[in-house]
Amino acid sequence: MTTVLDPEPIFPHELRDAWPALSRDERVESFKLVPHATADDFFLSLSAQEQSELILAMAPGERRTWMRLLAPDDGVDVIQASPPEARESLLSELDESTRREVQALLAYAEDDAGGLMNPRFARVRPEMSIDEAISYLRKQTREKVETVYYAYALDSHQHLLGVVSLRQLFQASPSKRVDEVMRRDVVTVSEDTDQEEVSHIFSEQGLMAIPVVDSERRMKGIVTVDDIVQVVQDEATEDIQKVGGMEALDAPYFEVGFLAMLRKRAGWLMVLFLGEMLTATAMGYFEQEIARAVVLSLFIPLIISSGGNSGSQATTLIIRSLALSEVRLRDWWRVARRELAAGLALGAILGCVGIARILIWQALFHSYGEHAVKVALTVGASLVGVVMFGTLSGSMLPFALRRVGFDPASASAPFVATLVDVSGLVIYFTAASIILRGALL
Amino acid sequence: MTTVLDPEPIFPHELRDAWPALSRDERVESFKLVPHATADDFFLSLSAQEQSELILAMAPGERRTWMRLLAPDDGVDVIQASPPEARESLLSELDESTRREVQALLAYAEDDAGGLMNPRFARVRPEMSIDEAISYLRKQTREKVETVYYAYALDSHQHLLGVVSLRQLFQASPSKRVDEVMRRDVVTVSEDTDQEEVSHIFSEQGLMAIPVVDSERRMKGIVTVDDIVQVVQDEATEDIQKVGGMEALDAPYFEVGFLAMLRKRAGWLMVLFLGEMLTATAMGYFEQEIARAVVLSLFIPLIISSGGNSGSQATTLIIRSLALSEVRLRDWWRVARRELAAGLALGAILGCVGIARILIWQALFHSYGEHAVKVALTVGASLVGVVMFGTLSGSMLPFALRRVGFDPASASAPFVATLVDVSGLVIYFTAASIILRGALL
Repeated sequence: MTTVLDPEPIFPHELRDAWPALSRDERVESFKLVPHATADDFFLSLSAQEQSELILAMAPGERRTWMRLLAPDDGVDVIQASPPEARESLLSELDESTRREVQALLAYAEDDAGGLMNPRFARVRPEMSIDEAISYLRKQTREKVETVYYAYALDSHQHLLGVVSLRQLFQASPSKRVDEVMRRDVVTVSEDTDQEEVSHIFSEQGLMAIPVVDSERRMKGIVTVDDIVQVVQDEATEDIQKVGGMEALDAPYFEVGFLAMLRKRAGWLMVLFLGEMLTATAMGYFEQEIARAVVLSLFIPLIISSGGNSGSQATTLIIRSLALSEVRLRDWWRVARRELAAGLALGAILGCVGIARILIWQALFHSYGEHAVKVALTVGASLVGVVMFGTLSGSMLPFALRRVGFDPASASAPFVATLVDVSGLVIYFTAASIILRGALL
Repeated sequence: MTTVLDPEPIFPHELRDAWPALSRDERVESFKLVPHATADDFFLSLSAQEQSELILAMAPGERRTWMRLLAPDDGVDVIQASPPEARESLLSELDESTRREVQALLAYAEDDAGGLMNPRFARVRPEMSIDEAISYLRKQTREKVETVYYAYALDSHQHLLGVVSLRQLFQASPSKRVDEVMRRDVVTVSEDTDQEEVSHIFSEQGLMAIPVVDSERRMKGIVTVDDIVQVVQDEATEDIQKVGGMEALDAPYFEVGFLAMLRKRAGWLMVLFLGEMLTATAMGYFEQEIARAVVLSLFIPLIISSGGNSGSQATTLIIRSLALSEVRLRDWWRVARRELAAGLALGAILGCVGIARILIWQALFHSYGEHAVKVALTVGASLVGVVMFGTLSGSMLPFALRRVGFDPASASAPFVATLVDVSGLVIYFTAASIILRGALL
């Protein structure tokens, strides 16, 4: 016999641990068991995608509470994460004034400052006294302003005149005026500033929030640094995945459907495969040489992969430096000279080791026939050439892509490796035809 | 004849643009020309490494102003970025109480929460009224507290009892007590929590600051979210560079000396080269087969690079998912099954294209002799095997490395490619010996 029991409550930290492994239905069921006092915080700590799934799985009567818990910028994210047919009904759960704010924000691209900003910020008038400003801020936070770290001084037409931190207000003598303590050279972004650019400004300036202004310097909202942490993570993930030779997934591994993931991976893999087919064509040209000197074929994988490895090092380095603005487009010539020197040095090191390996094996096992010394020289010279070519093309490709307006991260390491494979074969067999002429060839 | 002119002042934004291209001496000279009113902000926006270089290049008399401008946690970073012989003298520029704070912080590892934290935070007593708490905060900010976004309620032994945001203080009725509005379930980290873990907590919880407590819950300081943006950038850079097959540079491209960079790149390149030498050994075993069927050698680069590309996709995907905790160690079996299926599908797609390519070339140019169909089947079957092996080993290597305590990012894409190259050759020649037996072999 079974008795019906009230289900046990679930604590947020337990649910957080189990979360990635749960199906959508299990998430909804478990979430209902979180005690009400802590459910809010748990809900707010979820990603927009997860919040959207939870809300849409709830009965229409329950949705309102959770939609209204969200700040306007977070409400926008949830609506953008929901399927188009559900968006209208989610919007209708909001109160009139928030709905208007959310609708205004929905017009911005997700990746722009406008899509990240919160339209609710603390404002003061420049002519207020410090004491008046502090009580006015208290009043605003009692209503709906979220961040009171900075207060923005606006004129009656919403033009941004200055910024004052709460710290400055607290430090100043109460009878001073706001415009006596505020900073006038405010760092701002515009509504269409790309989020990657916004995150650079945050990491350079160490600010807690940046105001978003339109072309006439009217203040539209603020982007806060806590939203930027997520942006920086996402941009880095996108870059890493592109460097790894696939389209950016844009969602956690287990949340991407099998077919969607296959598509994102097969696309690039196919491009690389088609490129790599050129190696079969190149090899076709050297079929006679291989037939005459089979020993040459033994080192083909070694040579082309050394070019690929040095190329992916160089390209990864430059992609990241460009993304962080440590290196700019106009530095290409400085980078080219430096990478050429690095390629020469790295190629020389690998070349020496390669020659030593062949000569030692020859001395011990007589593996490579009577022309082993010339074979060794061919391999050594090819390594220098291939590594130099890999390093140089790997470092220049990101500049070229940036120059024509593409994302340098698309110059993914495997793409460079493919490029270098084909050229590596040409370099190797050219070196062989020069060094081994009259001996093996 | 030349006249001596006062040098023109330099504006911070001009200097910021030119900065990466300037030598150390040029930076110091230009910095001196920044008008004093804006020099502070410019100085504070520099990295610790750059601040250290500027300060050390100044006359001893000028150093004090700049050292004292830094908050204790930033002072620590500058001292850690300076050569060991200069540290004592920089410490001596600080006032007595800051020096003690900095010395205490210097004891923590740079990558731990203790190394990131600021020992100056806003504190209140739980039994204070809201009004008393607000005036007490005003007093503290007038002295030296930096962040007043949250105030921490401590007992007389510095134990953390709760946290209250400034927003909550402003919203609450002035006569209430702090312990009536504060949150007691505070998210904390300990002094030795790794900075990567700290950044996850920030991005999950969306907080502006997290308190650092010792094992007895005594409060030691706070980590603020603006410091975390830099951490997230740095950790991502480290991962991207490791994925690209090199040691993390830990500094911008142009600021790493040529020899230091060569060392960081040559090390991994050499490891990969030594691993790749196994391909020459493997090829040695198949020398007879190649001599008999030179046509087989034509597809060697195509086959091994397809394995390498699919392996680097899979490894990059899993490295990033592990870094973001989207995938945990215990999910390895779920990942293995999924990647095996993905590898089968991707391998089948590439295999079909490969077979089609060979048959079409054969029909058009008779490139591959009388056994072209069997050669095509060999290539197709090998592609399925190699891509499956690449996908599976690429996805499992990060788990294995994490399991034995290494950083999964060390399972860099080129490392997987090298592993897959050797096994790819074995798979290819094994398929050939089965399918072509009696025909070419």
